[in-house]
Amino acid sequence: MLSGVIPPVCTPLTPDHEVDVGSLVRLVDHLLGGGVDALFVLGSSSEVAYLTDAQRRTVLETVAGHVGGQVPVLAGVIDMTTPRVLEHAGVAVAAGASGLVVTAPFYTRTHPEEIRVHFRTVAARGGLPVYAYDLPVSVHTKLSADLLLELAAEGALAGLKDSSGDDGGLREVIMRRREPFSVLTGSEVTVDSALWMGADGVVPGLGNVDPQGYVELYRRARRGDWAGARAEQERLVRLFEIVRVGGARMGGSSSGLGAFKAALHLRGIIDCPVTALPQIPLNDDETRRIGKLLEDAGLL
Amino acid sequence: MLSGVIPPVCTPLTPDHEVDVGSLVRLVDHLLGGGVDALFVLGSSSEVAYLTDAQRRTVLETVAGHVGGQVPVLAGVIDMTTPRVLEHAGVAVAAGASGLVVTAPFYTRTHPEEIRVHFRTVAARGGLPVYAYDLPVSVHTKLSADLLLELAAEGALAGLKDSSGDDGGLREVIMRRREPFSVLTGSEVTVDSALWMGADGVVPGLGNVDPQGYVELYRRARRGDWAGARAEQERLVRLFEIVRVGGARMGGSSSGLGAFKAALHLRGIIDCPVTALPQIPLNDDETRRIGKLLEDAGLL
Amino acid sequence: MLSGVIPPVCTPLTPDHEVDVGSLVRLVDHLLGGGVDALFVLGSSSEVAYLTDAQRRTVLETVAGHVGGQVPVLAGVIDMTTPRVLEHAGVAVAAGASGLVVTAPFYTRTHPEEIRVHFRTVAARGGLPVYAYDLPVSVHTKLSADLLLELAAEGALAGLKDSSGDDGGLREVIMRRREPFSVLTGSEVTVDSALWMGADGVVPGLGNVDPQGYVELYRRARRGDWAGARAEQERLVRLFEIVRVGGARMGGSSSGLGAFKAALHLRGIIDCPVTALPQIPLNDDETRRIGKLLEDAGLL
Amino acid sequence: MLSGVIPPVCTPLTPDHEVDVGSLVRLVDHLLGGGVDALFVLGSSSEVAYLTDAQRRTVLETVAGHVGGQVPVLAGVIDMTTPRVLEHAGVAVAAGASGLVVTAPFYTRTHPEEIRVHFRTVAARGGLPVYAYDLPVSVHTKLSADLLLELAAEGALAGLKDSSGDDGGLREVIMRRREPFSVLTGSEVTVDSALWMGADGVVPGLGNVDPQGYVELYRRARRGDWAGARAEQERLVRLFEIVRVGGARMGGSSSGLGAFKAALHLRGIIDCPVTALPQIPLNDDETRRIGKLLEDAGLL
Repeated sequence: MLSGVIPPVCTPLTPDHEVDVGSLVRLVDHLLGGGVDALFVLGSSSEVAYLTDAQRRTVLETVAGHVGGQVPVLAGVIDMTTPRVLEHAGVAVAAGASGLVVTAPFYTRTHPEEIRVHFRTVAARGGLPVYAYDLPVSVHTKLSADLLLELAAEGALAGLKDSSGDDGGLREVIMRRREPFSVLTGSEVTVDSALWMGADGVVPGLGNVDPQGYVELYRRARRGDWAGARAEQERLVRLFEIVRVGGARMGGSSSGLGAFKAALHLRGIIDCPVTALPQIPLNDDETRRIGKLLEDAGLL
Repeated sequence: MLSGVIPPVCTPLTPDHEVDVGSLVRLVDHLLGGGVDALFVLGSSSEVAYLTDAQRRTVLETVAGHVGGQVPVLAGVIDMTTPRVLEHAGVAVAAGASGLVVTAPFYTRTHPEEIRVHFRTVAARGGLPVYAYDLPVSVHTKLSADLLLELAAEGALAGLKDSSGDDGGLREVIMRRREPFSVLTGSEVTVDSALWMGADGVVPGLGNVDPQGYVELYRRARRGDWAGARAEQERLVRLFEIVRVGGARMGGSSSGLGAFKAALHLRGIIDCPVTALPQIPLNDDETRRIGKLLEDAGLL
Repeated sequence: MLSGVIPPVCTPLTPDHEVDVGSLVRLVDHLLGGGVDALFVLGSSSEVAYLTDAQRRTVLETVAGHVGGQVPVLAGVIDMTTPRVLEHAGVAVAAGASGLVVTAPFYTRTHPEEIRVHFRTVAARGGLPVYAYDLPVSVHTKLSADLLLELAAEGALAGLKDSSGDDGGLREVIMRRREPFSVLTGSEVTVDSALWMGADGVVPGLGNVDPQGYVELYRRARRGDWAGARAEQERLVRLFEIVRVGGARMGGSSSGLGAFKAALHLRGIIDCPVTALPQIPLNDDETRRIGKLLEDAGLL
Repeated sequence: MLSGVIPPVCTPLTPDHEVDVGSLVRLVDHLLGGGVDALFVLGSSSEVAYLTDAQRRTVLETVAGHVGGQVPVLAGVIDMTTPRVLEHAGVAVAAGASGLVVTAPFYTRTHPEEIRVHFRTVAARGGLPVYAYDLPVSVHTKLSADLLLELAAEGALAGLKDSSGDDGGLREVIMRRREPFSVLTGSEVTVDSALWMGADGVVPGLGNVDPQGYVELYRRARRGDWAGARAEQERLVRLFEIVRVGGARMGGSSSGLGAFKAALHLRGIIDCPVTALPQIPLNDDETRRIGKLLEDAGLL
């Protein structure tokens, strides 16, 4: 059962917006070197919504190939509906992924019964264990505990990545699960409390920037050093401030993903901080402020 | 400048969910025979969100090939962000489409400035005239009149397909436009009033089922027979009741697209009424009720 | 059955935010002099959400008393739930109002069945005919045609004020109504088309500023001069631009109600353009731009 | 500074929907006997949205009078805008309340700057310390950490009742506060983790039913027995299942408030479980299931 620190891997791009394979490999080494337990590629933090199918394939093959089975590699198969998700699943299987991360359908007007059919179908035909990705900010529906537990009970779901921000709901799933069902929080700032409630792991976008921090947090929690876990979490909460530097003049994707990439660039891990179109780039002043926050966190 | 009746062409599927090319060709002939002015493929009514890229290409090539330039063929290039939309645009250009229909980005958290960059970029690199597709129910942002008119003024947009249901907003765009800018309503049930306000045409999903009806409505309006246009519109409003037969036990896509396909099947135009996964199929009773509504409308 | 032009009467305030009774009486005379068919007090345009109960009572008694039965006076009884609405209804009955305008419950998390109970209860105990006020932007639920028609059939509703902006839905109600059921649009900018569809009247906030305009529009439509009605509507659409002058630096209430009051002040009808707290006041430049739009419309 | 367990007191009603003063007094004694640190009247759990102003006053005077200064009594002053909130504040001051609980404006379309003006004005003129009530499910705006901390810094806010369910946001406020600023979670099911993060107290609706449980949870946390706190929290999570018994056939208010009252009635604390209109009552079977959950929790 999947557990521990599973960062959603950023996708470094070249100045002309192609996948920067060299930087991606360095980023993977940086994460593995930080002690992470698995990797998640092609999630929101990977700019999956902005990558062409060819680019998605490049990312998947690069990471799965470079990791070579050292740790599990989960693949996001983010698309609007079942048939399109199944296409991505085929690519993930071929590349050697360990599991699929699947959202509810989006763009379409979807009924709960259709969401159930969606997950069941991907589970039946996708060829890999399925992790539900609860991300209402993107797909505009919330996965209910009842639906998740029903799908878990019938074997259609291996786990949950919860990026809903609703820790009461997360706790309900944890307490009511009967089957082995991996519960992972997608929140960067409530990892200690999620682990405290019984979550199995964390998928932190900020873990790209500071994997050691999240690994340390996780290890402290696992050995019962909750005060130590909290101290580390609070350091990471202060670091997480980088995602707000872009502020109100751009959307949350631009501001958050731009900050992660700016930080990775400032730390020398990737060659170029560019984000995909139509995201707004951070300016020099904003990048300087991110650098200052990295310094405060002991990362520069 | 695009005008008249431009139905968004349904995508007939085989029982195993492949594109039914024979039925699609018959549907195109049915629409052309009904006197429509152009076709729009790969929109919401085409189940574009449910088609794989290969299926999208098949649809586009089939329709553009069969039409052979008799009328313009607009191509929906529906995807989450600019790079993915540009991929679809390349396919549309190759297939001989006449224009691109483009929504705001979705799934990502998008800022108005990013929406502006998105349309500008697709206009600059897409290779075909761009029609903005305002569809808040799917993309969760509304395109403002200010943004649309600014993009029109700089030549980035050739027109608007307005499926927002906001006829006050539609009127504002019509009254404030300065450039040639084609305004098309996507509403099936307010076509006479949209034309009355100065709209150039209509993109009615229900036009698959009754293209003659919409063509007649349009012609009456154009020759100033507004009372006649309203009478025809009211007949079509009653027919539109078919989209609600599926009711509360399924989502709006299942109920609406299922109804269009059931009607096309009952009318003998397509071989199979199946819709793509994870949509819920209409049952026999619901199909019978759709048949009854077709009879009432003089279509069976 | 209620029909014609029924402006929602603004509530003039003194500089220290009390009801300015003298200005209110002058405004009522201005509206009656403009030829309106009825008045609606204590609606959104009256800043009902900002008035204390004592102020609401003052408004109601002032207007009903001054009108003295010349035209019907509808009273908004806007509050969160049934018991609070019934309190306001008692005041309205005592003041001599002709009907109650009632929204769905808000603030609470409401189920359709609870909305049904709400309207039925107010109808049974409110003491006056009930008009449903469909205002999703404020109450965050849309009243469905099915619910409205069911309540109309059982005699619980005398009519509908539709401020949802959904003219397709408006048309559905008009076409499906069987009982005498007054359908009024709350949109300032689609009055000609709503009347064209069969609506009985209009409740235009902008009618405070230019009652003659809406009365002329209505009369032209009623005598079949639709081109003339459209011309007048288009003039009013251009005037309606005043509500956007406050723009993005304030909310829609501040910008819209502030504009109506600034215009009434510039036209010499009310003594003071102040709006209630916490609305943001328009500044001098914005007021000047509103004056310019009034000039363009021939109102200054 | 306010801390500890501060239940939002339910409002018992008679079968004809009047405030049941005798039951209310018994409920207050039940809560005080359970060891709570303060009381919050006229919040969502008090059905404040359903009470007339006279009923609100009765509740406030009854509770403040009966408590007689033994513990602080916070008063919800829930209404749409500043002037109406100030009216309620006057009543609260007269009744001897210790503080005001204030939401963002609702029903109106509100801009962040207007929310700021609203809180500042209530703080300046309300006559009592103000606690911000963050309740997006009801008011449809989220209070940002920046706004809260700015208002705290200028002395306009004494604290926060956070019912947003966003524990990441809660933590941000806790970590960034500089002034004495009381942070209270409104979530029944994440109290241990909120206290872990540094929250000062909890305002649990479920605390009506089991005040001893929340007091015990709080005491264990305060003396550092976090495992004990979690065990008690998990027992309360299972008990919280009562709010879902009403399920999908009613709204969340009906289901949740109905369950609290049914439980208080089954435990013999209040005379009648009725909720205010237009809420849907629980049926006998649902009440039985609530009784079963109370037994499981050792409360019957």
